[in-house]
Amino acid sequence: MVRVTIWNEYLHELENEAVAKIYPEGIHAVIADFLKKEGDISVRTATLNEPEHGLTEEVLAETDVLIWWGHKAHWQVSDSVVERVYQRVLAGMGLIVLHSGHHAKIFRKLMGTSCDLRWRDVGEKARVWVVEQGHPIAQGLGDYFEIPREEMYGERFDVPAPDCLVFLSWFKGGEVFRSGCCYQRGRGRIFYFQPGHETFPVYYQPEVQRVIVNAVRWAKPSFVDNRPVLMHSEPLEELNN
Amino acid sequence: MVRVTIWNEYLHELENEAVAKIYPEGIHAVIADFLKKEGDISVRTATLNEPEHGLTEEVLAETDVLIWWGHKAHWQVSDSVVERVYQRVLAGMGLIVLHSGHHAKIFRKLMGTSCDLRWRDVGEKARVWVVEQGHPIAQGLGDYFEIPREEMYGERFDVPAPDCLVFLSWFKGGEVFRSGCCYQRGRGRIFYFQPGHETFPVYYQPEVQRVIVNAVRWAKPSFVDNRPVLMHSEPLEELNN
Amino acid sequence: MVRVTIWNEYLHELENEAVAKIYPEGIHAVIADFLKKEGDISVRTATLNEPEHGLTEEVLAETDVLIWWGHKAHWQVSDSVVERVYQRVLAGMGLIVLHSGHHAKIFRKLMGTSCDLRWRDVGEKARVWVVEQGHPIAQGLGDYFEIPREEMYGERFDVPAPDCLVFLSWFKGGEVFRSGCCYQRGRGRIFYFQPGHETFPVYYQPEVQRVIVNAVRWAKPSFVDNRPVLMHSEPLEELNN
Amino acid sequence: MVRVTIWNEYLHELENEAVAKIYPEGIHAVIADFLKKEGDISVRTATLNEPEHGLTEEVLAETDVLIWWGHKAHWQVSDSVVERVYQRVLAGMGLIVLHSGHHAKIFRKLMGTSCDLRWRDVGEKARVWVVEQGHPIAQGLGDYFEIPREEMYGERFDVPAPDCLVFLSWFKGGEVFRSGCCYQRGRGRIFYFQPGHETFPVYYQPEVQRVIVNAVRWAKPSFVDNRPVLMHSEPLEELNN
Repeated sequence: MVRVTIWNEYLHELENEAVAKIYPEGIHAVIADFLKKEGDISVRTATLNEPEHGLTEEVLAETDVLIWWGHKAHWQVSDSVVERVYQRVLAGMGLIVLHSGHHAKIFRKLMGTSCDLRWRDVGEKARVWVVEQGHPIAQGLGDYFEIPREEMYGERFDVPAPDCLVFLSWFKGGEVFRSGCCYQRGRGRIFYFQPGHETFPVYYQPEVQRVIVNAVRWAKPSFVDNRPVLMHSEPLEELNN
Repeated sequence: MVRVTIWNEYLHELENEAVAKIYPEGIHAVIADFLKKEGDISVRTATLNEPEHGLTEEVLAETDVLIWWGHKAHWQVSDSVVERVYQRVLAGMGLIVLHSGHHAKIFRKLMGTSCDLRWRDVGEKARVWVVEQGHPIAQGLGDYFEIPREEMYGERFDVPAPDCLVFLSWFKGGEVFRSGCCYQRGRGRIFYFQPGHETFPVYYQPEVQRVIVNAVRWAKPSFVDNRPVLMHSEPLEELNN
Repeated sequence: MVRVTIWNEYLHELENEAVAKIYPEGIHAVIADFLKKEGDISVRTATLNEPEHGLTEEVLAETDVLIWWGHKAHWQVSDSVVERVYQRVLAGMGLIVLHSGHHAKIFRKLMGTSCDLRWRDVGEKARVWVVEQGHPIAQGLGDYFEIPREEMYGERFDVPAPDCLVFLSWFKGGEVFRSGCCYQRGRGRIFYFQPGHETFPVYYQPEVQRVIVNAVRWAKPSFVDNRPVLMHSEPLEELNN
Repeated sequence: MVRVTIWNEYLHELENEAVAKIYPEGIHAVIADFLKKEGDISVRTATLNEPEHGLTEEVLAETDVLIWWGHKAHWQVSDSVVERVYQRVLAGMGLIVLHSGHHAKIFRKLMGTSCDLRWRDVGEKARVWVVEQGHPIAQGLGDYFEIPREEMYGERFDVPAPDCLVFLSWFKGGEVFRSGCCYQRGRGRIFYFQPGHETFPVYYQPEVQRVIVNAVRWAKPSFVDNRPVLMHSEPLEELNN
C-alpha cells in the first residue's frame, strides 16, 4: 500500500458557489475517490483549517506521498508546518504539487526560486503533450490529451530545470508550459503537475486522474530515513599524513 | 569588465593565529589579489562586521558576480541581507560559493536542501578531477590537480543534482565529492567549489585560482533584469472561447 | 575571432524556384552575411557537392564552430566525413544544427537516438518562448518572439533530454516543441535550433539571427584537444596491494 | 514478472583458468542465479557464439530488460544484432550495461560518445558511494559499500552527463568514477554499473547483487511501443492561415 495524504486549502469550495457546484465535498474528496479505487493506495485528507492544518507529526510519519492543492491562502500556512513537511520530504516522503500549489511555501522552499509564471484565466483549451513516453508517470497515456477549458499557465516558469520533464502543455492563446516536472530533493521525489483550476472539472478527467495515480506510485519512497546527512567521517586505516 | 564583490566572514583570520599566518589580510584579500591581476575583473570586498555586512543595495547593484566565503557565523548573516542577495541572484547576478559556504543561508535558500555533507579535518591529500573537460570553468587545467593538504568533504552532499558537474574530488581517506557544481537559478548562475579550508594555503595554489577566475567569467550575467516573472498575459487575438 | 564553417546541403535553392527566390545564393550565404557583420566571427562555407562535402581535415582543423543545414540528402553525406566531424566535435569543436538537420547523420550519431519528431508544413505561426532567460544564447531577446510562417515541428522529439533547454516553441495548430536544446558531448558543445524551413524567410529575421550569433559564441571551445580519453593510469605511490 | 535476458560474451571464462575458477559456468550463470531467487524475475541467457548471439527477434520480443557483459570481443558483435537491440531499447526495453560493456557497440551507439575512460588492473580497493540515497537503484544499501579488489575505472569517463548519477566510486590508487549512471533514451531506460572485472568475484558480493536486482526493476518498461515517433500531424480545426 502507498499511504497518501491529500492536503487541500479548501476555501474556494466553501466560499464560491461555482466552485462548490463542481467540487461539493472539496477537491480533496474527488482526488481521494479516484485514488481509493486503485486498491493499492490508502488515503487520508487534511485541510488548512484543521489544527496544525491536519499535518501533525503523526500524520506525516504515516504518509508516503503528500498531495498539495492550495491557492489563495498560501501565506496562512504556518512556517512550522512547512518546516515539518520540508524535513519529511528531504527524509524521503514523496510530494505532488498541483496547479496553483506552484506558489505554496513548501514548493518555493524546496525549489529555491520564485516559482512565478504567466497566467490567464479565460478557460481556454489546453493540450498536454507527453515528452517522455517511457516515464512511469506517462504510463497509459497517448501522445497527448486535451483539457477543454483550463486556466493558462505559461513560461517563463521560474523553477530549476526539472530532473525530468514529462509533460509540456500548449495553450490556445499562445503560451507553452513545462506542466509535468520531476525533482529529486534530499531523499524525496517531487512532481509538479499544472492542470487543476478550481473553476473547471479538471480532476474528473480520466487522463488527469491517470497521471496523479502514476505520480503517487512513482513518488513512493523506497524508505524514509531521518538520519542526518551531515556527519564526521573516520578515514581509512592506512591514512597517515 | 566583470564587477566582482568578494564577501568573507573574516573571523578565523582575526581570531586564530595559524589562520592569520596564512591569510594575514583575510582570505578575501588573497582572492582579490589574483582576480585583479586578470585585467578584465574589477574587485571590491565586503565582510560580516561591516554595516549590512557590506552588501548594501548600492553594492549589489554594481556587482556582476558575488563570491562567498563563510564558516562559523552563517547564523549571524541577517535574513534581510540574505533576501537581498537572493533577489539579485534570481535577477541575474552570478554567485560563487566556496568551501564551507555550503552551509551559508544564501546557498541553502537557493538550493532548497540541507546542503549537509561528510567532513574530516586531518589535512589529507585531495585530487580534483576534471569531469567536463570542455567546460569554460575547466579551461587551462589538466586531467586533474592535487591539493596537498585539505579538509575532506564527502558524499552524500545533500544538494540538487547540479545542472553541470565540472569537478569530482578524491580524498586519500576514502571519500569522493562533487566538488565543482554549476546551477542556474532564476536568471543567475551559481558555482559551488569545494577547496579552501582556512588552515591550508589553498587559495595561493595556481589551479585553484584558475578555477575561480574561470568561474567569475562563466557566472557573469549577460544582463541583470529585475522584471518580475509573474505576470498576467493577454491571449492571441484569435482566441474566442 | 571565432572561426565558423557553415555547411549547407544546398539543393533546394538550386532545384526549387520558390526557395531560390528567398535564398538566391543559398541559405549558407545569408547566414554568412549576418555572422560577418558581428566583427568577431570569421566565416567560411561548405556544401554537399564540393569534394569531401567541403569538410576536409584542413577545414575542420581551422573550424571552431560548425553550423549544419541539411534536409533531403542526409543519406548522401559520406560516412567518413561524418566520422571526421564527429571526432572533431568530441575533441571540442562546437556544432550548431538547424531545423531539418535533426535527421542529419552527424546529429543522430551524437544523440544516440532516432531524432524523429512530428511535422506539418502549412506555414503556420510559431512563437519561440525563452525558457532560460539568463542563458547566453537568449541574450538580447524578450520573453518570446514570433515567426509568422514556419513549418511545425512537434513533440515527441526523440532526443536525449537536453543538458539545458533554452527555447520552447508554440505552434498555432496545436503542438509544442523543445526548439532550443544544448548538449555537451565529449569536449564539444552542441546546440539544436528548430527554426529555418527553406520556403520561409526565417533566417532574415533579426531574432533568429541573434540566436545563431549567440550560439556561435556559446559553442566556441575553450580549446580543442585531440588527446584520447582512454588511457592506462599509474597509481599513487602509496598503493601496495 | 520482469523478463530478463543476460547477455555474456563468455570468452574469458572458457579461455582463462583464473577466470574459470571464479565463474565456472560463466558470469551470466552467476547473475542468473541471484536474479532467479527474487521470485518476480524470469531469466534467460544468451552468449556471443550462439546464432545471432542468442539475441533473435523472438528473444528480444520477450525481453523486458537486457543485461550486457562484454570485454574483449565487442567488435565481433554483428552490426545487425546491435541495430536490433538498439531499436528495442528505443521502443522501451531496459538495458543494464556492466563494467567493460562501456565499450560495447550498443552502449556507444546509444551514448553517442567514445565511452573511453582511464583504467588500471592491479586489484585495488574500491568504495562505491551512494550519491542519490532516495533512488530505487540504491534501495537497501548503506552510505557506501566496498569492493576489496577491483579493476580501477577512472574519469574522464567520456559519456553524456547522466540523467541521474546514483553511484560514485573511489579507488585507492587515486581516481574517482561515475560508477552508476541512469539514462533515458527513446522509451527505454539504461543503467551503466562499473563493478565486475572478470578476475575478481565481484558478482558474488551481496551489495553488487542488490544493485543489479534494483536496476532490473527500475529499468522494466511500463510498456514497449514500436510505433515510430516520426509522423505527419493534422492541425487543430481552427487553423486557417
